[in-house]
Amino acid sequence: MSLLVIGSVAFDAIDTPFGSTGKIVGGAASYIALATSLLYDRVGLVAVVGEDFDFEFIETLKSRGVDTSGLQVKQGEKSFFWHGKYHMDMNSRDTLVTELNVLGTFDPLIPEHLRKPDYVMLGNLSPEVQIKTLERLEHRPKLVMMDTMNFWMDIALPQLQQVLKMVDVLTINDEEARQLSGEHSLVKAARIIQAMGPSTVIIKKGEHGALLFGEGQIFFCPALPLEDVFDPTGAGDTFAGGFAGYIASTGSTSFEAMKKGILFGSCLASFCVEKFGTERIAGITMEDVNTRLKEFHKLIHLD
Amino acid sequence: MSLLVIGSVAFDAIDTPFGSTGKIVGGAASYIALATSLLYDRVGLVAVVGEDFDFEFIETLKSRGVDTSGLQVKQGEKSFFWHGKYHMDMNSRDTLVTELNVLGTFDPLIPEHLRKPDYVMLGNLSPEVQIKTLERLEHRPKLVMMDTMNFWMDIALPQLQQVLKMVDVLTINDEEARQLSGEHSLVKAARIIQAMGPSTVIIKKGEHGALLFGEGQIFFCPALPLEDVFDPTGAGDTFAGGFAGYIASTGSTSFEAMKKGILFGSCLASFCVEKFGTERIAGITMEDVNTRLKEFHKLIHLD
Repeated sequence: MSLLVIGSVAFDAIDTPFGSTGKIVGGAASYIALATSLLYDRVGLVAVVGEDFDFEFIETLKSRGVDTSGLQVKQGEKSFFWHGKYHMDMNSRDTLVTELNVLGTFDPLIPEHLRKPDYVMLGNLSPEVQIKTLERLEHRPKLVMMDTMNFWMDIALPQLQQVLKMVDVLTINDEEARQLSGEHSLVKAARIIQAMGPSTVIIKKGEHGALLFGEGQIFFCPALPLEDVFDPTGAGDTFAGGFAGYIASTGSTSFEAMKKGILFGSCLASFCVEKFGTERIAGITMEDVNTRLKEFHKLIHLD
Repeated sequence: MSLLVIGSVAFDAIDTPFGSTGKIVGGAASYIALATSLLYDRVGLVAVVGEDFDFEFIETLKSRGVDTSGLQVKQGEKSFFWHGKYHMDMNSRDTLVTELNVLGTFDPLIPEHLRKPDYVMLGNLSPEVQIKTLERLEHRPKLVMMDTMNFWMDIALPQLQQVLKMVDVLTINDEEARQLSGEHSLVKAARIIQAMGPSTVIIKKGEHGALLFGEGQIFFCPALPLEDVFDPTGAGDTFAGGFAGYIASTGSTSFEAMKKGILFGSCLASFCVEKFGTERIAGITMEDVNTRLKEFHKLIHLD
């Protein structure tokens, strides 16, 4: 068994009402790789960075057992960079700067020993790169999971629809589910998106929890009510990584396993928002995770 | 044991993207009385209407075992009237007309045999009327529950603070909890509101479920994901009524009982939004409630 993760490994700069970071490590695949590697020990990463990247972060991933042989380093080029500013309520944000840099020409080259994964997690990326990745695998994985965002619905909808036909599980936020389906009701939206390809749809509602739709059933997992949300950046990616890591670790793709998967995703995301960037999720142990899982169980337990 | 309900019994006119009602029965205490009487058989109502009211509705309450001897009918006067219009997302609404009529001079006269309730549910009303009601009881009830809204925070905050000191359980929506506490974090907001009086705070988040804070613990109950929300009017009152009715029926005020109380509240509210006004909640049976409770259990059940 193995889990292939692909997505952006990048720099972010984040402004919140609590302060600003300089350039720090960000990117969907950074969060996903940190989250999955906490739960599962056979994670491979495919991504691209420029020569300006913070290579200590790559050492961190290696030390957690992530196979980073699929990370391309482009000499003379710069890493993808995003600069965003959160509003007072921390629920909405403005993008101040986006520099594609190496991501603009990313060709997802997969080392030969990573071409037969049982599980794939396609982090938020251009649908064309997501499709190329799947086409380059030697066999159809047991489960293909994917995350995306409204940006691709706006500029690459046909390609997004094409990749959706190739995936089993889509994680998407509530507003994006509404945009993609054209339906306000999330129950109807999930059904429409399922008809586009993924048999399982997970709708992420941020502080309002997450809904899992599959096998004609619905399961809901709340977000942990927190005293403070320090920085929401990467919470959705961490959620997806926690889900993918749990599924890979169990080897089951049943609805019951997926229910626990979104519990693990919600649990890891609850850590992510407590510090800037990847700092918190890089610093926790399975003991921290298990303690917090107990809080989740108390939060939803009924006799 | 008995449960005293006080609040508005009134007329509403409701415009939604799905259609408009003429004048129909509404008011917080109408929804609360319907919900409580489904779960508990010793409910007494204190309210005021004008001679224009729809008295068939009062007969409906009586047929459900509600003691309506505390309903005042003001000859030559008109019932409270509210006209509202929901936006496309059904989450926000504009008030088009508010006519206080009989509610402007409401003196909550409590028939002698209703002055010793074990439980009180103060529906949304002026804090002054809520205080008068409590002052007129012969002894301190076992549990005083109260609902309120932002309107009273805007125009009668000192009186609202006074009544909060007299209650055990406050039900309030998320925006109102933020306004009352001055805190965006609902965890912090609940703690601040608890310090104002009520040892238990229930924050209603509409389609995003409800949070119960008490005894240093937190419990979360989701709303049932619905295909369509037809009319949200009265859902919060129905929730409060379901909670109060369940608590009165068990006779327990433990945190465990309150957890089940918000499950019953969420369950009844999920019916309320399926038709205009009180129509749906007036038409369901305990069999319907039990069937839907099973859906809630499936939605949140983890092995």
